[in-house]
Amino acid sequence: MEKEVFIFGHKKPDTDSICASLVRERLDKKNGWNCTVAKRLGKVNKETQYVLNYLHIEAPEMIDEVEEGQEVCLVDHNEFKQSVEGIEKAKILSVTDHHRIANFETAEPLYYTAKPYGCTCTILFEEYKTFGHEISKEEAILMASAIISDTLLLKSPTTTEHDKKALTELEKIAGINIEEYGLEMLKAGTDLGDFSEAELVNLDAKEFEKDENRFVIAQVNTVSIEDVLKRQEDLEKAMNSEIEKKGLQLFAFVITDILNSNSEIIALGNRTDAVEKAFDVKLENHRALLKNVVSRKKQLLPNIDKNM
Amino acid sequence: MEKEVFIFGHKKPDTDSICASLVRERLDKKNGWNCTVAKRLGKVNKETQYVLNYLHIEAPEMIDEVEEGQEVCLVDHNEFKQSVEGIEKAKILSVTDHHRIANFETAEPLYYTAKPYGCTCTILFEEYKTFGHEISKEEAILMASAIISDTLLLKSPTTTEHDKKALTELEKIAGINIEEYGLEMLKAGTDLGDFSEAELVNLDAKEFEKDENRFVIAQVNTVSIEDVLKRQEDLEKAMNSEIEKKGLQLFAFVITDILNSNSEIIALGNRTDAVEKAFDVKLENHRALLKNVVSRKKQLLPNIDKNM
Repeated sequence: MEKEVFIFGHKKPDTDSICASLVRERLDKKNGWNCTVAKRLGKVNKETQYVLNYLHIEAPEMIDEVEEGQEVCLVDHNEFKQSVEGIEKAKILSVTDHHRIANFETAEPLYYTAKPYGCTCTILFEEYKTFGHEISKEEAILMASAIISDTLLLKSPTTTEHDKKALTELEKIAGINIEEYGLEMLKAGTDLGDFSEAELVNLDAKEFEKDENRFVIAQVNTVSIEDVLKRQEDLEKAMNSEIEKKGLQLFAFVITDILNSNSEIIALGNRTDAVEKAFDVKLENHRALLKNVVSRKKQLLPNIDKNM
Repeated sequence: MEKEVFIFGHKKPDTDSICASLVRERLDKKNGWNCTVAKRLGKVNKETQYVLNYLHIEAPEMIDEVEEGQEVCLVDHNEFKQSVEGIEKAKILSVTDHHRIANFETAEPLYYTAKPYGCTCTILFEEYKTFGHEISKEEAILMASAIISDTLLLKSPTTTEHDKKALTELEKIAGINIEEYGLEMLKAGTDLGDFSEAELVNLDAKEFEKDENRFVIAQVNTVSIEDVLKRQEDLEKAMNSEIEKKGLQLFAFVITDILNSNSEIIALGNRTDAVEKAFDVKLENHRALLKNVVSRKKQLLPNIDKNM
């Protein structure tokens, strides 16, 4: 039997990471490449679970690490810190991604497709077009869900014309009302009630490295920032414990209001000055309101990174 | 006036680096993107000059460095060590390449197209197909020349089915006999007579970094290894001077016989053991014959890198 090639998105997978790995597998098969199998690097979040339930499909199998020489295809990430344990010794055959490239390297040439779009699934949508493959209803809903999630229903500043065009076409194939479906899906993801504070600060946390500085930007979506802030004290305890455990210079926890497109940031560590400089704000009680800031990739990361 | 976006290949440009930048500019224009302009990071070599003379076109303008914030598109390389001075502060909009990815990073998302093919121009050829653009005779000869150069007329182990398919189709469009044209072109590049030894060891030299180790693999093509070896003593002086100047652990100078597809390697520095281990050879008088070795990317670099 042919050896399996693993496809996976980043740790703490979001909807794009899960959907892109499932779609990548389906697309590979249409191209006659049958050995790739979608995997995931963590718990399925509630927003993604809504999508899987809607389609009556199972989540990809979870893996913790890969063995030396394991062949892998990355989607929705490239930085090793966000990838599977053992990635340095794996053989990366392809990357399909929409993020900056950093802390990534290979020993040999590979397929790498990055485009500065709002969502990995928009790139995959264009790949279907290039190869002339038809898109099934299931594939359309997987890709549409990822685009809705990453662009907050096309309202995030990461949204490009390519994402809009893809979502319009996917809506037709899916035969659903994207506004209605999307809002239900996003709301499902904002149900934070049964997470502990330690889980909340890790739910969608990404770790970055700048020179010798390590920092984390974590984000949760909500329809009521106030509700989340009621737990600030315990959230800070959880953040400080992460700072200690990982030797971080900064932990930024971002609570994003998906209805009004604002965020409240809580920043701890000895480099919170980077957050203040990045957004020209003064932290009070460790936090500040960031007006019209919703995107980690386009707004939070580049501005904080610049000031680290 | 719109600001110019520079397109360029690697330092010490070979035929693929020059041709790919010229073709990338032409392809961008066909896509309605008029602000990109081909540049080059060094002297045009004799093989490439043969191509430019054949087509009666000028080489791209030479640049030494770029200013902070300059927008650039890289072809045929990604490693910063092989790129223009100032690349760390430039804004990289796109990369089109067929090498491993290493020592490369961006602050923001970008277009990145890598495929593990023998030549960058084969990737560009497929891009014409994707966009449905016609290929002119001039574009066909530029791309064919790069493929012939990088794959030594499809004989290098880097050659893929994609390169073969592209060259077959480009031959038809170009309306020339590829075997005849290609051999003339390759031979033009082996005329090393009027280069000093210092020039020879730098002609097609690429610098790499592994952990704290820096090493250079330089390569020249010839139809007579013996002729080049007559200059071994002076070549070694030039290599030692590079080792001192750049603080290298290893300088490998590879003389490749393009007719018989073998190479002779001269290795100096305190890590020549990496070469011996890489190819299971014993260096005598600082050199060894590497049977059927012709490719830096596929044979020399991965094997030496592994043993550094």
